[in-house]
Amino acid sequence: MATEATRLPPDLEDERVARAAWSRLSEPGDLRAAGLVARLGAVEALRAVFERAHSALEPFVARLSGLDVSRDRYIAGKYQARVVIPGDAEWPTGCDDLPAPPVCLWVRGPARLETLRAHSVALVGARACTAYGQETAATLACGLAQRGYGVVSGAAYGIDAAGHRGALAVDGPTVAVLAGGVERAYPAGNADLIERIAETGAVISEVAPASAPTRSRFLLRNRLIAAMTAGTVVVEAGLRSGSLNTARTAAELSRPVGVVPGPVTSMTSAGCHQACRDGYAVLVTDVDEVVDLVGTYGAEAAPRRSDPVQPGDEVDPAAKAVWAVLPLRKAVDIATLAADAGVPLAQTVASMGQLELAGVAVRDGDGWRRAPKRSR
Amino acid sequence: MATEATRLPPDLEDERVARAAWSRLSEPGDLRAAGLVARLGAVEALRAVFERAHSALEPFVARLSGLDVSRDRYIAGKYQARVVIPGDAEWPTGCDDLPAPPVCLWVRGPARLETLRAHSVALVGARACTAYGQETAATLACGLAQRGYGVVSGAAYGIDAAGHRGALAVDGPTVAVLAGGVERAYPAGNADLIERIAETGAVISEVAPASAPTRSRFLLRNRLIAAMTAGTVVVEAGLRSGSLNTARTAAELSRPVGVVPGPVTSMTSAGCHQACRDGYAVLVTDVDEVVDLVGTYGAEAAPRRSDPVQPGDEVDPAAKAVWAVLPLRKAVDIATLAADAGVPLAQTVASMGQLELAGVAVRDGDGWRRAPKRSR
Repeated sequence: MATEATRLPPDLEDERVARAAWSRLSEPGDLRAAGLVARLGAVEALRAVFERAHSALEPFVARLSGLDVSRDRYIAGKYQARVVIPGDAEWPTGCDDLPAPPVCLWVRGPARLETLRAHSVALVGARACTAYGQETAATLACGLAQRGYGVVSGAAYGIDAAGHRGALAVDGPTVAVLAGGVERAYPAGNADLIERIAETGAVISEVAPASAPTRSRFLLRNRLIAAMTAGTVVVEAGLRSGSLNTARTAAELSRPVGVVPGPVTSMTSAGCHQACRDGYAVLVTDVDEVVDLVGTYGAEAAPRRSDPVQPGDEVDPAAKAVWAVLPLRKAVDIATLAADAGVPLAQTVASMGQLELAGVAVRDGDGWRRAPKRSR
Repeated sequence: MATEATRLPPDLEDERVARAAWSRLSEPGDLRAAGLVARLGAVEALRAVFERAHSALEPFVARLSGLDVSRDRYIAGKYQARVVIPGDAEWPTGCDDLPAPPVCLWVRGPARLETLRAHSVALVGARACTAYGQETAATLACGLAQRGYGVVSGAAYGIDAAGHRGALAVDGPTVAVLAGGVERAYPAGNADLIERIAETGAVISEVAPASAPTRSRFLLRNRLIAAMTAGTVVVEAGLRSGSLNTARTAAELSRPVGVVPGPVTSMTSAGCHQACRDGYAVLVTDVDEVVDLVGTYGAEAAPRRSDPVQPGDEVDPAAKAVWAVLPLRKAVDIATLAADAGVPLAQTVASMGQLELAGVAVRDGDGWRRAPKRSR
């Protein structure tokens, strides 16, 4: 570990370059780094590290030997990745709600990130998902994309990949947030998928190129997904799934959280059910309900699910009571109907009028019976 | 229809007999009948009907011609049915919370009904249920019975029957509330089941013997199930299922309501999900959660569902960060670990102590690596 103070190289005396350097020196979510950069600006904060200005800077000093911004930018250039920083028009403003916002984002792909906060949904869930979860994720993603919502996820196997693929299937915008360097396709099995996302949407990371996706970076990546988006939906999650961590972060950031229910016998739905029982997530069962969850209040309220109206729905309770005792074949007189239904005689007469109009009752001699089904 | 005033026969001048008569003259849930009986007492209210004291009594007068209490009691006697009225020790007090409580209950079977309010659960749901719903209902009923809770339902096909059978399978108390006369096994296909319930639990109706189970009586029967019990659980329900009517009534009576989730692709779970979204029901996924829902607060709180503790759970966040970068095979020195994890050197040293104690890290020469899985 280098211990002697050095001077800040002149090529790092630029806010964007200095922030890129900070993405190498600090771990995602590091409150000290975020605080320093916010207080001093990225350049001056970096100068303090080079000059060993304080012992609290030790963790960043320890990483100086690995710092090579021109190499990072060279790698990024090979992958057409840009460095996006706060203040840029396309900066995803939702990130600013985090206690330690990313110092910068490494971004591949044409998608503009400034729309994500209002018009995207984080669709996350278990890697070891079921066919049911996969299908549900794809259906939701497809529907969201068709309604103009970006689908944001982590490019993992299972639910993440199904969500991205659902959006791609309808040429919708989709954004993958990676835990490692933006050029490292992880998991390798999803390399083709990540490439396709980079071509039409965006692949994002807050760590410098070539960084490994470690466990803690996965968890911290999740907070970005939660912060960037209008809301988070968990499709399938076991009780300890990392996607619940995304959901809890979203809730802490006052983003709405939805969970998709599943069979109680499926452990990959248990985390979703628990989140609903815990009260920080609501059930969502179709794309309308997801849009209702994350959309502008009122403007996009989901139609309340209901079955089509059934014959007899339009009549009043007394008429329903009379209809319930109306025989199918052998007609009976009004007085008997009134007695059987427990409805006053005058009201029974009125009820028969309603039922006849509704086409569910017919006169037969002096009495009444139900209309045959074909005439209804 | 008889129109001349007559005198109340002397054999009806008895509260229990008069209430039995009222169960013939009035429909379940009739507010006028309930009001009259509450205000005048069943005998005097009945006398008013016989004497045509007021035109508002017309619906009851119209049914006098069909009144034959001794015949009703003869039928009931053949089925060992008793007439239970308010004030009886076994009266299910939950019924008194209804706007129009039953005037009496016709009851077959040895179960005492006074325990239902505190120690029973209404388990209801779709007739056209799936195998998943049937299995879940049986499992819940079985678990509830084993914990001493009565299982109350409507003896219908599907979820109702599965619930009753689940309780019977472990010799638990189960109660069927019928929409027609207590001696009419409806549906006929469940006649054997209803017979078994009558032998060990109870079969109940609020309408007089030989009464037909009409549509409105089914809906009004549901309110009894909701009122009698400590809470209602819906296992599977379409969007228009009658069991949602039971659930809503339970909620209106301030009884807790649980719904079992299922696949979003299953229309027989759509009503359960909607009830949860509407906010009057909570998700329940196992018997502990049902007992938690209906049990005495605190005394029977469900253990929060979680997976067993994993290695490393007991260490602090810094140690977790160090462990995340700890190599599996080739040991590295403390300074490198500190730099990789972004953790100060002194804290990294302390972290290694924690990880060694937890059995997940081992010394190797001058460095550290992860403990092989078998030693954890």
